[in-house]
Amino acid sequence: MRYGTRKGLINMNKKILKVCIIGSTGHVGYVFNGMQEMDDISIVGVTPGSTDEKMDAVLEQAKKLGSPAIEYSDYRIMLDETKPDIVVVACHFGDHAKYVVEALRRNIHVFAEKPVATTSEDLDRIVEAYNENDVQLAAMFGIRYTSPFQTAWYKVQEGAIGKVRLMNAQKSYKLGTRGQHYKNRKDYGGTIPWVGSHAIDWLYWFSGEQFKTVYASHSSNYNKDHGDLEMSALCHFTFTNEVFGSVNIDYLRPGSAPSHADDRIRIAGTDGVIEVRNEKVYLINGEAEGIQEIPLVPEQQIFADFVRQVRGEGKCIISAEDSFYITDACLKARLSADENRVVKF
Amino acid sequence: MRYGTRKGLINMNKKILKVCIIGSTGHVGYVFNGMQEMDDISIVGVTPGSTDEKMDAVLEQAKKLGSPAIEYSDYRIMLDETKPDIVVVACHFGDHAKYVVEALRRNIHVFAEKPVATTSEDLDRIVEAYNENDVQLAAMFGIRYTSPFQTAWYKVQEGAIGKVRLMNAQKSYKLGTRGQHYKNRKDYGGTIPWVGSHAIDWLYWFSGEQFKTVYASHSSNYNKDHGDLEMSALCHFTFTNEVFGSVNIDYLRPGSAPSHADDRIRIAGTDGVIEVRNEKVYLINGEAEGIQEIPLVPEQQIFADFVRQVRGEGKCIISAEDSFYITDACLKARLSADENRVVKF
Repeated sequence: MRYGTRKGLINMNKKILKVCIIGSTGHVGYVFNGMQEMDDISIVGVTPGSTDEKMDAVLEQAKKLGSPAIEYSDYRIMLDETKPDIVVVACHFGDHAKYVVEALRRNIHVFAEKPVATTSEDLDRIVEAYNENDVQLAAMFGIRYTSPFQTAWYKVQEGAIGKVRLMNAQKSYKLGTRGQHYKNRKDYGGTIPWVGSHAIDWLYWFSGEQFKTVYASHSSNYNKDHGDLEMSALCHFTFTNEVFGSVNIDYLRPGSAPSHADDRIRIAGTDGVIEVRNEKVYLINGEAEGIQEIPLVPEQQIFADFVRQVRGEGKCIISAEDSFYITDACLKARLSADENRVVKF
Repeated sequence: MRYGTRKGLINMNKKILKVCIIGSTGHVGYVFNGMQEMDDISIVGVTPGSTDEKMDAVLEQAKKLGSPAIEYSDYRIMLDETKPDIVVVACHFGDHAKYVVEALRRNIHVFAEKPVATTSEDLDRIVEAYNENDVQLAAMFGIRYTSPFQTAWYKVQEGAIGKVRLMNAQKSYKLGTRGQHYKNRKDYGGTIPWVGSHAIDWLYWFSGEQFKTVYASHSSNYNKDHGDLEMSALCHFTFTNEVFGSVNIDYLRPGSAPSHADDRIRIAGTDGVIEVRNEKVYLINGEAEGIQEIPLVPEQQIFADFVRQVRGEGKCIISAEDSFYITDACLKARLSADENRVVKF
């Protein structure tokens, strides 16, 4: 699959950007966090994207940030009336694609929860709409912007571990009690695309390589009445230049654990090993004896980064091409796990 | 492959057990460590098992422990003349099988470096010789006996994490400068069987499940003139009951690291998560808030454990069946990596 070349960036001369929000399910909070460092964003309309979604909390947040948005019951009427510059899509995961495609076709920039699609057919429709319109898109791979992952990434870019050879990434979450839309494949998409997509993204982002093959497994055993939801998953990716990466994903983190998530990555390179664990960064290389704990760089804001790109003021860390490529990798991994076979890219 | 049922245990009435040692390459030190807690073992003969092996250090250690062993230049003459109860095999890895088969056929118990064979043909010959003779065998999966792995294993057996669902094991070594027998597949066998076998063993041992499939990758890129030696490898195992396990293996641990090896395992179960890392054991489950560091049980001695079994005084933690099954798993993983395909058990 090819996603076309990088689009030209648009300079919008610092006009107020109008934003619509569809859904209240995913990391819509990224928008509000980003708005705290920008005074030229206005949320003009919100609407539920999926069954039973309530928009009250979103409206309240928008109001707090000076945007008295209107709630619409029909997203098409909202888009017709408000003519937004950016649409934020964050509803049930199986519904993302419908809204992303609609926005792209209307030439509206899209900031969408990942995975942007939960089927390869939907992904193809998104890529087609993106390629046919002069728009920007980023998926919410927000963990790239956290302090530890930013810190580790800069160290790897600086050459602190030489060439990346072997990576192991982890996503471990508490299960708790989850809503109905986590319990069926159609709405949820699967644990590999929903939880695993972050870690699959890290492998790609850190290595700078292209995916070659994936072999994956997942199991919904012991999921405490969560329907189709897979409790555990394991993915084995091979990349160009004989670089390899695993992703282990689970909802088995006990309620007594000190945090919701236990995100990790270990990257072994020709000149060193770097790790993100417990929100800290550890490095071993020839520069010092023993294990160094690396001082963290500040957290960045993903939505602010995307808005800068929309304004032609920079390049978002998450490109549309990355967003599509990682989604494709997630769907290939899920296919591998469903069919117990190696899937090639 | 089936390895037959458990043999009857022999009671040898505390006679002095005569031991011969073939080779000086692997973990022959396990024998000397074990002898320190036994006064009824005598090393009667030693001989090199592979080209360029020197036996001086082995002879010296034996002498220190009260065994003035004779060095032979021909292993058959040694076995004919000394008639040992136990043969220790620890030469170049591709040569293990020859001596193991010879000893088993002579009805001599075998304590052998892992992997006991580096080809499936050799493994078949060993299993056949084992099944046709009334002998005991254990491979040197000595890390099972270390304090942290013993501690974690007991906790898992006690039910501290419920049912095992997802495992990630790591073997990371410093490369240093290695001898010629690490540089070609015939002598070395490969990084998955040599280094990885420990971690593959842990997955089997902790889970109590049977292997179903393996998909693996390995690369000899950037191996600093070490011929065929694979610097990085990744294995993805599926087990019965939809249990999954990964093994990542590398020789990328920098010289400045605080130890030679960075052995780890993380096991997520239905009721908790346990980890061995940095020679410590960490547990999260419902019994306490946060992460508990578990007090370590004492280290055990693998050779002493095997001798107890030979004497009919117990059951060795490493059975012959386990030794063969793990070797088979390593060879299937190597085959998968060589041919880039899923291999079934």
